[in-house]
Amino acid sequence: MDILAHLEKVIGDRRNASPDESYVASLNARGMPVIARKVGEEGVETVVAALTGDDGELIGEAADLVFHLLVLLQARGLTFADVRAELARREGVSGHEEKAARSE
Amino acid sequence: MDILAHLEKVIGDRRNASPDESYVASLNARGMPVIARKVGEEGVETVVAALTGDDGELIGEAADLVFHLLVLLQARGLTFADVRAELARREGVSGHEEKAARSE
Amino acid sequence: MDILAHLEKVIGDRRNASPDESYVASLNARGMPVIARKVGEEGVETVVAALTGDDGELIGEAADLVFHLLVLLQARGLTFADVRAELARREGVSGHEEKAARSE
Amino acid sequence: MDILAHLEKVIGDRRNASPDESYVASLNARGMPVIARKVGEEGVETVVAALTGDDGELIGEAADLVFHLLVLLQARGLTFADVRAELARREGVSGHEEKAARSE
Repeated sequence: MDILAHLEKVIGDRRNASPDESYVASLNARGMPVIARKVGEEGVETVVAALTGDDGELIGEAADLVFHLLVLLQARGLTFADVRAELARREGVSGHEEKAARSE
Repeated sequence: MDILAHLEKVIGDRRNASPDESYVASLNARGMPVIARKVGEEGVETVVAALTGDDGELIGEAADLVFHLLVLLQARGLTFADVRAELARREGVSGHEEKAARSE
Repeated sequence: MDILAHLEKVIGDRRNASPDESYVASLNARGMPVIARKVGEEGVETVVAALTGDDGELIGEAADLVFHLLVLLQARGLTFADVRAELARREGVSGHEEKAARSE
Repeated sequence: MDILAHLEKVIGDRRNASPDESYVASLNARGMPVIARKVGEEGVETVVAALTGDDGELIGEAADLVFHLLVLLQARGLTFADVRAELARREGVSGHEEKAARSE
């Protein structure tokens, strides 16, 4: 399984866990303003790492950003597949081809 | 091909095109501060869409964010596969399994 | 008159002007999500200027940030004096002394 | 004394204190990337408070943003007076009048 799809499954499993035991559950318990704030902050940290950090720092911040984006999408009932489909639509790749490519 | 891998190839092809003809080329010509700024701004726009926009607006901003993140990674000689590998490492999925999953 | 108080007066005068003729009016016509987005984007631009720009660029971005913060506060019925009062409260300066200092 | 000028003096006094005893000293010891990151993060928190918080939350985040902007300016050898002067220049108020207004 693709790691992003795997993470989306994990995030879904943990959403309703105890906020004391799961970071994802604590984010969801605190609500969308806190989840959105985390995405914005990780965006800022990615900017700073891109301008002053080494490759490991940049990859780490980009991973944080993508992870929190998955949490945010799921809190809105959306998935990364929706983002892929939008990127494919813009690029002129049909949704049919895109889905086929991902499920190969 | 996965749309993210496809976009990375397109971004690589366009990087050295004329800045007048390609958005990606113009970003690269203006340099890392401008590319990083775009990632940060798209992060902010994702925050605002998450709090006040409909699903289409949020997906659109998230797609902008991911696209500019790909441009930023490539400008640093990195790829989205590096971000996937970091997410997999954190999740305890071995890089071997992750690579196998993506190339299935 | 202090330039921040002057700008708040100008922003108030222009809020209800024609959006075609006034930038402040156009921001207010587009609503709080757009105003808030501008504050976040100017925050990002200040970050980038602090890390890669010269003094003039940093001052310019900081000025943009403060200007849009004044627009945002006014759109919520607040003023920069409210921010000063909060900073003074944290610093232990009484509001009475602070008001006296500013009106000297 | 104006609270912003007072804070700039306090920030200057604390810059070289022990990082264990002073938040300002710890920010400066960690360097410009951390200071800039804080400004960007407070910008994001101001966005979220503007869209979802009450007046007290928005004022609190705006105060955090202004405070960290003062720390950032000082770390670059600049002052809020430089930002005021730029805002006045844009507004067409002469520096002479602005300085006179602030020193009244």
